[in-house]
Amino acid sequence: MILTVTLNTALDITYRVRSLRPHTSHRVTEVTERPGGKGVNVARVLAALGHEVTVTGFAGGPAGRVVQEGLTTVPGLVDALVPISGATRRTIAVVDERTGDTTQLNEPGPHVLPAEWSAFQEAYEDLLPGASAVALCGSLPPGVPVGAYAGLVRTARAAGVPVLLDTSGEPLRRGVAARPDIIKPNADELAELTGSHEPLRATQDARRRGAGAVVASLGPAGLLAVTPEGRWRATPPSAIRGNPTGAGDAAVAGLLSALTDHLPWPDRLTRAAALAAAAVTSPVAGEYDHRTYETLLTTISVTTEASAA
Amino acid sequence: MILTVTLNTALDITYRVRSLRPHTSHRVTEVTERPGGKGVNVARVLAALGHEVTVTGFAGGPAGRVVQEGLTTVPGLVDALVPISGATRRTIAVVDERTGDTTQLNEPGPHVLPAEWSAFQEAYEDLLPGASAVALCGSLPPGVPVGAYAGLVRTARAAGVPVLLDTSGEPLRRGVAARPDIIKPNADELAELTGSHEPLRATQDARRRGAGAVVASLGPAGLLAVTPEGRWRATPPSAIRGNPTGAGDAAVAGLLSALTDHLPWPDRLTRAAALAAAAVTSPVAGEYDHRTYETLLTTISVTTEASAA
Repeated sequence: MILTVTLNTALDITYRVRSLRPHTSHRVTEVTERPGGKGVNVARVLAALGHEVTVTGFAGGPAGRVVQEGLTTVPGLVDALVPISGATRRTIAVVDERTGDTTQLNEPGPHVLPAEWSAFQEAYEDLLPGASAVALCGSLPPGVPVGAYAGLVRTARAAGVPVLLDTSGEPLRRGVAARPDIIKPNADELAELTGSHEPLRATQDARRRGAGAVVASLGPAGLLAVTPEGRWRATPPSAIRGNPTGAGDAAVAGLLSALTDHLPWPDRLTRAAALAAAAVTSPVAGEYDHRTYETLLTTISVTTEASAA
Repeated sequence: MILTVTLNTALDITYRVRSLRPHTSHRVTEVTERPGGKGVNVARVLAALGHEVTVTGFAGGPAGRVVQEGLTTVPGLVDALVPISGATRRTIAVVDERTGDTTQLNEPGPHVLPAEWSAFQEAYEDLLPGASAVALCGSLPPGVPVGAYAGLVRTARAAGVPVLLDTSGEPLRRGVAARPDIIKPNADELAELTGSHEPLRATQDARRRGAGAVVASLGPAGLLAVTPEGRWRATPPSAIRGNPTGAGDAAVAGLLSALTDHLPWPDRLTRAAALAAAAVTSPVAGEYDHRTYETLLTTISVTTEASAA
């Protein structure tokens, strides 16, 4: 099984309104709810690809109950979220039916108590022996130490389980130093980590900081990977139009899926780039269309990349 | 005890954001939640005034559970909400910290099944013998027949319990014809009911349609009442500044409180107008400051009003 960790799970709520006008009152015409947080999104894509996947992290309060109930409906997915006294956050995406634009409102995460953080670390150690790979995804809720991912990376490495880290800011900086097998920053996260806005240079620099491989997700430009086996760029056939929300999570799922299928790096990048592009074209943020994905698999171009000197 | 009916209860959520900008992402800096719906708000004010109050209506789903948990914390208030399979709606008020303005997002109500509507009517009949007055408040959720309030008014009258109706549109039109003791429309509701934008004429007309007494809430202009005992206008001492949300519900609570205290109409209007004004000045929508209320009680002017011919 593949293990995904989401310390800051969320109940993702989408509201459709006819037209969002600040300082007025709106009838919401449609409400949809879904378990969320980056690792949960990764797990959903992995399950759709046919992998056995276990979700851990934290869940609490009314939104946490809804998240856990939602996870039970996904075939192939096992819920191993650890209970907390605080309430799982909600995120609200308000979709303007007139323009198609989305306005996002994100609640702060729950405060995690020291005993809850300890309980999670024990649960994580117990899950690792059954995992073929682990993904550590997203932001840290209040109360979880900023070096949390560094510790979780070290525990995974000690257990011999390949570990992918997808976070940002200081938790990423500290986590990279603990030598995760893969990190998947986007352009902003990469620039924040390295100080460089030149993608290839920054990707190489991120690897020097401790990551075994760095896969940078560059939006419409696809993926740029610097790995122990070489450097590649994976590019979709043409500009993909749609909603980029969740494309990064789909790419992470593709990397893990191909890693546990023992594919070489170019094939991993093809799978990750095709899933990311299929997620962008999906009408529902974070979902992907399987037929689009299969078509894209044959059209992703993977080229070797010279070093940035 | 005073009974309040809220068929379309809500979980009222308030988000504070630094500045609301459509089509961008926002961190919510503060989340507050409270049981809501007009009859629930009326009950909260009645309980704060020292009355025993029972809340009925519908509750279901995760938000319904939070509403019911919230009601247990209000001293003097008894929760008699009837369970439904659908989910109680949420309302989200997004407060822009920069401007102080509020943007409102209201979910649609849950679909109420015929068996659930029947169960409610039985519960209502069982509660009426213990009630000194009943308030029927707010909109109807989908599935509840548009003549619902007319039936509930008749049942209350048959039980000899004074009944106040505070709703709008077709449910108000039909409810008025069933001869409630009091209705409390605002200016828009009154104009929709009668076709007249002239408050005194419209208030008199509303009474001719079947209401025993009509108390029109006219915002900063205070209350205008046409009753079997006479016509009065209750006016606050000067323009009250603040948030008018919940002022109408506070006025309803004042009318019921004074009715069950057997006060004459001018004193009922003083109490209702003072509570409404105290609600406007409160920093929290729907709450009221008790000291402000007591000060205002002595400064509300109640004057008799000539007929509109």
